[in-house]
This record gives sequence, structure tokens and C-alpha cells, in this order.
Amino acid sequence: MKALVIADNHKLEFREKETPALKENQVLIKIQAVALNHRDQFIREGKYPGIKIGTTLGSDACGRVIETGEKVDEVWKGMDVLINPNVGWGENPNVQAPDYHILGTPTDGLFCEYVAIDVNKIAEKPTHLDAEIAAALPLGGMTAYRALFHHGKCEAGSKVLISGVGGGVAQFAFQFALAKGAEVFVTSSDENKRSKAIELGASAAFNYKDENWTKEAKEKSGGFDIVIDSAVGDGLNDLIKLMNPAGRIVFYGATNGKPKDIDVFRMFWNQITLQGSTMANDDEFKAMLTFVKKNRIEPIIDSIRPFENIVEAFDKMKEGKQFGKLVAKF
Amino acid sequence: MKALVIADNHKLEFREKETPALKENQVLIKIQAVALNHRDQFIREGKYPGIKIGTTLGSDACGRVIETGEKVDEVWKGMDVLINPNVGWGENPNVQAPDYHILGTPTDGLFCEYVAIDVNKIAEKPTHLDAEIAAALPLGGMTAYRALFHHGKCEAGSKVLISGVGGGVAQFAFQFALAKGAEVFVTSSDENKRSKAIELGASAAFNYKDENWTKEAKEKSGGFDIVIDSAVGDGLNDLIKLMNPAGRIVFYGATNGKPKDIDVFRMFWNQITLQGSTMANDDEFKAMLTFVKKNRIEPIIDSIRPFENIVEAFDKMKEGKQFGKLVAKF
Repeated sequence: MKALVIADNHKLEFREKETPALKENQVLIKIQAVALNHRDQFIREGKYPGIKIGTTLGSDACGRVIETGEKVDEVWKGMDVLINPNVGWGENPNVQAPDYHILGTPTDGLFCEYVAIDVNKIAEKPTHLDAEIAAALPLGGMTAYRALFHHGKCEAGSKVLISGVGGGVAQFAFQFALAKGAEVFVTSSDENKRSKAIELGASAAFNYKDENWTKEAKEKSGGFDIVIDSAVGDGLNDLIKLMNPAGRIVFYGATNGKPKDIDVFRMFWNQITLQGSTMANDDEFKAMLTFVKKNRIEPIIDSIRPFENIVEAFDKMKEGKQFGKLVAKF
Repeated sequence: MKALVIADNHKLEFREKETPALKENQVLIKIQAVALNHRDQFIREGKYPGIKIGTTLGSDACGRVIETGEKVDEVWKGMDVLINPNVGWGENPNVQAPDYHILGTPTDGLFCEYVAIDVNKIAEKPTHLDAEIAAALPLGGMTAYRALFHHGKCEAGSKVLISGVGGGVAQFAFQFALAKGAEVFVTSSDENKRSKAIELGASAAFNYKDENWTKEAKEKSGGFDIVIDSAVGDGLNDLIKLMNPAGRIVFYGATNGKPKDIDVFRMFWNQITLQGSTMANDDEFKAMLTFVKKNRIEPIIDSIRPFENIVEAFDKMKEGKQFGKLVAKF
């Protein structure tokens, strides 16, 4: 079968690999569509721990069960499913075990034609979504779900800021918060992304490169109860300043690096939470899909291309111009 | 009556003030003993917002109800009580209202002979404690109670680090965590304070000025679930490094100032919480006293002196050599 591997530093390559053999408790899935995450591009750039040359990349996929292994209920056969990319979260729902990682590095991932996987790692594709739309859900949806609900405690009426809307996790956090009945604000430096967010239901959209964006944000929102962020860096103090008392800043990445001089005085007086978050546990994979089904959420797709052209999607992600997920289909 | 006021920048003075008149729903209390908090010394040094010349200082006191106002149950008359120093916490238990403050600035405080106060702001003194011991409880006990239980979620078996043990809040956090059945570790740069903490039940005590203290702390504890801190500053990264996954760093002050370059990468990967905390709501005042009664906790008292000599206690607090609370009695 064909698989996209990391062939060298900065180099992606299609390779022929053996179709995986099916073990007990596993299903064999023929992949229909896959979606990119920033993680994939970071691995391409050598910016990720544990990279092994020759690993099949990819954490997000939708596919059809074409064979069931021993001890697996036949009901799965022929079903279109999504794959939970967690490997070894472990027993504690609050935090992953030390050897936890995600499919696609160092364990072989999903950018390939067939995968054999434990049946407890799959769930039925939401029936309101085509395979190439549903493929966008797992990693981004799980990360957003945990950040927004487990850590952020988002409720109907919460005032939520999603920073850097348009990114994979940010778009899900945006859609999930709207579906929950929150009042949702966004930031982006890209005018198109801001207009798109307003169209989709944002109460206001701010350009964090404007000097006065915090003033405007304070006026239009009155302050935020929850911020979902993946930038951190020196902009963190702007966020701290915009928080309502007892507000929660949840971050699942730090693309702008470590912050300098964070205003801990305002933090303790206003009882602000700065909360690190990463991915989600196996139960949350299922809870997220239930939420998506119930609210008939449709992932925002930037573009869909044939699997042969998936490297173009990596290039587009590097430029950061996409709004929504980059998908490739077989 | 005699009252200790802030008379000028850095200047404390005894003044004669009128004994307060009793209003509806209030009780008149004859103060028996008062205790100092860092806040009092900070006000003396001009390092606190809202300082008004002539304000009676003081947030902690124990006294006897000598008169009850209209609509107050007579049962209070003659009772020894502690005073909740909260002014205007407001309706939201999660966070104080914008005009919230603490008795002693800008509202007149408790370093005086008589005070008239709403009956819903008092609670019976724990019967196992003398007035001059019980006087140490309110502000420090409330702050510690909220940091440790509301934010820190301390349970039996939690591994807890109390930094800067010997300080007013730190000592209560230390005692409360031990009473809850946690495994408690402490830091101090003062050898006497470290030995005292071991005597009182700490599993180990570390000198944060030692270069290798984090290595020693990691070896002896295996990592912390909760840190209760009031220093922050550049030591924050040491704490982040020592946290178990999903660990919570709760801080109620920042005497070492703003941290530089905090390791947000480790924070998001290990799902670490950095949580600001301040004082406690009115319900927690009562819950804290119930906890103290149930566990027969005895506040650690550094020294007790006559009220006439209370300025000496301020001087001792400034030097930071005390272990436990500084008390003055009438």
C-alpha cells in the first residue's frame, strides 16, 4: 500500500509499505480521507520530539472497516469510522501517561491506504458528515473539546475568546462554543479569517496586530470568562488584562514562545487561571463525537485534494493561509 | 478608645477615636487580641492601594460581644467571637466584587479597643483556643483554606509543597494540608524554620537557596500535586519542573515579582495549572473555622505582646524572622 513517510529532515516521500496484518481485537480499515494537523508540518520541519525516519505520518482519518479480527463484533464490518489517534493515554482521565503519544510519530500514522487498529479506538462516523469532512474531526476536535469544556468549563452564556481563529483546533473550539450557547469572540491578523468568523456567528473579531485591539475587545465584550489560545508569548498579558474575575486562559500550544513578565499580581487578585491543556482522553474522543452529532456540527474545510497531492496541503499549512482543515482523499 | 492608625507614610500612631455607635444588625465587640498580617506592614510601607491617612489598621481580631443591636439574637451577648475581615465580597462565591476589600484599609480595621460589626460577619471562637491564639486565624486561615481546597483541591494523600513556610498564610496551608492527610513538604531559606516544620510533621524541608534543591525535592517527593506559593518570580520554573502531571500551582501573592520566560511548553504538555488566589468568601470563613474546630488545629504563634507594644511586632514582621503569627493582646 502507499504511505506518506518522513524520509529525512524536511523531506516527505510516498513509500510502498505492507498492508498491515490483523490481530486479535483489531479491525482493518480502508482509509477514505485524511486531514492535516500542524503537528504533521512540525514533524516535517524536524520540530517535534521522537521523530523516526520512515514513520508513516498522520493523526486524522476516516475509513471503512473491511475486516474484523478475532473477538471483534461483526457489526463493525462495513461501517465508516473515525479513529482515535491516542496511543497509551493510560488510566488517569486527568492526564496522559508518560509514554503517551499520538499516531503518526513515533507510531506509524494514518496517511496511508490501510490501517489495523484496536476496535476500542474507533467510533462510527457522524452520519450527517461525508467521510472527507468527518476526517477533520479527531485530533483538533478532541483538543478543542478538552480545552473548552474540561478546563475552560464553557457554558451557555460564557464569554469566550478564541485566539488565532482559522487554525485547526481553534475552529473547533469556535464551533463548539457557539453550539454550547456561548458568546464567542475571535482574533486573527487575517481580514478574511475575521470576516469568515463573523459570518459563522462570532460576536466580534479583533486584529491582534492593531495596537488598540484590547481596548476594542474590552468595549465589545466587557471582558472574557474563557480564552482558548495556542500562542502565549508576550501577548499573554493582553489576555490577562481582558479576563473577567475568575476567568480561565486555556492554552494547548505556545507558537509565540515563553512569555516575559506576566502580570501575576492581576492574576492573583482576580483569581485568574492559566491552564495548560493537551489532546483529550479516550472517553472525550467519544464525548466529542456525541456533541458533534447532537449539534450537527460541520467541520470547516479549507480544501480537499487527492492523496497524491497531499504534500501541497503541507505547503499551504506552512503558509498559514488556510481557514479550516486541509483534507486529502483516496 | 485607643486605635492604631496609619498617620503618615511609614508612620504608625496611637490615636484616641470615638467608641463606635451600634446600628441595626450589628454587635459591639470589645477586642481581646489582634494579629498581624503582611498586609499591615505593607500598608505601613505605603505599598498597598487605597491607603487613607488616619485609618485604623488591622484585619485579625478576637473579641467578646458586649452589646447587641436591634434585630440581633441576644444569644451572641457575652460570646467570644472571631471577625470575618471581608468587606463586600458580593454574590459570586468564585470571586470577589470589584469594590471588595479587607478591614484595615480603606475601611477602619480592628487594631483598636471596640468595633461595631454586622452579626453575619462574626463566628464563635473555637472553644479549644484562647482568644490570643484564635485571633491569628481569620485572614491567614481563610487565604490558606481557599488556596489549598477550593483551588488546590487538596485531598488525603496529595503531595503538597508549601513554599516559604513560616509566613502567616503558609503556616495555615501547612497545618490544614497535614490535617487533611496530605504528604506535606516545605521550603524555607531559614534553617530554624525548616527544622520547626519537620518537627511539626513535614516529610522534608528544602532550602530554595541551595542550587540543588529541586533535585533533592524531586528525589524525596517524586513530584508535587499541589504547590501553595506566594513568591512567584523566577523560581516559578523550578516549581513547574517539580509538578506531577495535572498538578496545580496556587499563588496568593508574588513577593518575588513577575516571572521571566516561564516554561509554558511543559505546562501545556503536562496540563499544569497556574492559579491566582486571594482571600476567601464569607462561606469559606465559616467552613475554615469548622475545619479548625474538627481538627483541633492550633495556630502557630511566634509571640504575644501587649497592644501598647504592637509596633514592635510590625518591626519583627519586616525582618521576616518570625515563625507563626505575631499577636498583641489587651
